[in-house]
Amino acid sequence: MKKVDHIGIAVRNLEEVIPYYTETLGCPLLKIEEVASQKVRVAFIDAGNIKLELLEPMDESSPIAKFMEKRGEGIHHIAFGVEDIDTRMADLREKGVQLLSEEAKPGAGGAMVAFLHPKSSNGVLYELCEKQ
Amino acid sequence: MKKVDHIGIAVRNLEEVIPYYTETLGCPLLKIEEVASQKVRVAFIDAGNIKLELLEPMDESSPIAKFMEKRGEGIHHIAFGVEDIDTRMADLREKGVQLLSEEAKPGAGGAMVAFLHPKSSNGVLYELCEKQ
Repeated sequence: MKKVDHIGIAVRNLEEVIPYYTETLGCPLLKIEEVASQKVRVAFIDAGNIKLELLEPMDESSPIAKFMEKRGEGIHHIAFGVEDIDTRMADLREKGVQLLSEEAKPGAGGAMVAFLHPKSSNGVLYELCEKQ
Repeated sequence: MKKVDHIGIAVRNLEEVIPYYTETLGCPLLKIEEVASQKVRVAFIDAGNIKLELLEPMDESSPIAKFMEKRGEGIHHIAFGVEDIDTRMADLREKGVQLLSEEAKPGAGGAMVAFLHPKSSNGVLYELCEKQ
């Protein structure tokens, strides 16, 4: 992996949290969008060399809602930017890494994404993220 | 904030985890050092545009040991690289952010560091990190 694209952060309410990033920390808001497949609203914050991806669940069945039930608001995942996600997934599988899906899926920002099982990564949820 | 310097990750045993980063994920190991003030051994992993800072507690009184008692291994903090940490701390305090120490302290990599209280940051532990 040669680059971290973003860090995903679970929050209860985007509108309540965004001013902390934009005004207090001085990081610009890039955009807000909905990712229906993950049932989240997403705000991208510009932290210079990477993005912070604030994730608000759209309903209780969202993976982010389930994460917050257990652990509260906080850091959810680290996303590596990759160029050929299918090859990367095959390579990791060959090395014994468990992935959370058979194939990459559409994620935020028009990217194709896939997640590595935290059990393979000592408790860290890593994402692979290929921009189209 | 204009740059993320590193992401801190709590692990039980550096030597067991490092091969996952170097061999499986293909990220080079930069160095290993001890930070006596935080009672941690630290391995810096090169993730291209940022570093991953693997943190192993040196004994049970380490903040990292206490973190893992509650939450297990996983992502611990996000560190912003800053140029004048004292001014940044004063600015954040003025904006109502609670800091975990009055003054910056020596951290890993010869940096001066300070932490923002997660209550101020919706559950995220942010660090300010000024390289000397």
